[in-house]
Amino acid sequence: MRAICTLCGKIAYQNPKMVVGCLIDHDNKVLLCKRNIQPSHGLWTLPAGYLEIGESAVEGAIRETREEANADVEVISPFAQLDIPLIGQTYMIFLAKLKTPHFSPGPESSECQLFPVDEIPIDSLSFSSMVVTLSLYVEDVKAGKPKFHYGIINKRPGTSPSDIHAYTLDHHMHL
Amino acid sequence: MRAICTLCGKIAYQNPKMVVGCLIDHDNKVLLCKRNIQPSHGLWTLPAGYLEIGESAVEGAIRETREEANADVEVISPFAQLDIPLIGQTYMIFLAKLKTPHFSPGPESSECQLFPVDEIPIDSLSFSSMVVTLSLYVEDVKAGKPKFHYGIINKRPGTSPSDIHAYTLDHHMHL
Repeated sequence: MRAICTLCGKIAYQNPKMVVGCLIDHDNKVLLCKRNIQPSHGLWTLPAGYLEIGESAVEGAIRETREEANADVEVISPFAQLDIPLIGQTYMIFLAKLKTPHFSPGPESSECQLFPVDEIPIDSLSFSSMVVTLSLYVEDVKAGKPKFHYGIINKRPGTSPSDIHAYTLDHHMHL
Repeated sequence: MRAICTLCGKIAYQNPKMVVGCLIDHDNKVLLCKRNIQPSHGLWTLPAGYLEIGESAVEGAIRETREEANADVEVISPFAQLDIPLIGQTYMIFLAKLKTPHFSPGPESSECQLFPVDEIPIDSLSFSSMVVTLSLYVEDVKAGKPKFHYGIINKRPGTSPSDIHAYTLDHHMHL
């Protein structure tokens, strides 16, 4: 599909889309939302969604967290950029903290819950991007300090895009 | 404008676009290309351009460098993510090095040249993103070590989007 405006004939090029979200650490626990919508209904995710025109990545991540977890956060630092060329998406995840200790499920979530780092439900996460992000975070916490990570999520040959554990993390760089 | 496919009626949502590029350090000099196209014809830029569907940011940055500077590079680390909400763009700049010491202008460049860090033509750069990127890099080199930077480029009230020095760098974070 190539979308062309019926009024002016301008082509709307298809570019990769940016997904922005927050990894909120509160008393050594991470805030996750259980998805109340498809895809991945019933599985856990960080609050995240598509960046909109006119927004910075930080503003988008704060907005998505407000929408999905009714939580007001302050962004601390960038944590990960993960490209998923297979589906034309790039995830930008920021470390954030709650401004007040209040949160509750927004319309797209059925539950919001704080998980201790060693009790994150890795097998019940919604997307491979979330498995990678949270696995890197758990490693960093155990090593004593979060880093900034870049990586490319590819699927192993013959696996489905929806198999969240069937990825390779390529060109992983951190600092 | 909202672009709608004339065949299937699908709306092509307008999302921010990612621009990817390389900051190549070669013997303490930085590779810049003089633009042979509009906008900013005749001004200097890092090799950079729009990320395409199916590409990772690193692959896009390597491709743009090949196209604009006929240079074959290896990416070393992420250097900067700079959002420009005013024009719906996000720049991703990677530090890179030349695999071989060869480069020459591609079709979109009239010249390619290595500039010592203290001779970068800051007043003849093509975009505020390039002024910010290269200014941060010069600071980091003087401090002894490149960091990873996130920031939002906004324009000061009453200034033009094309005034490359009329920006504020908001929410600057680095690690």
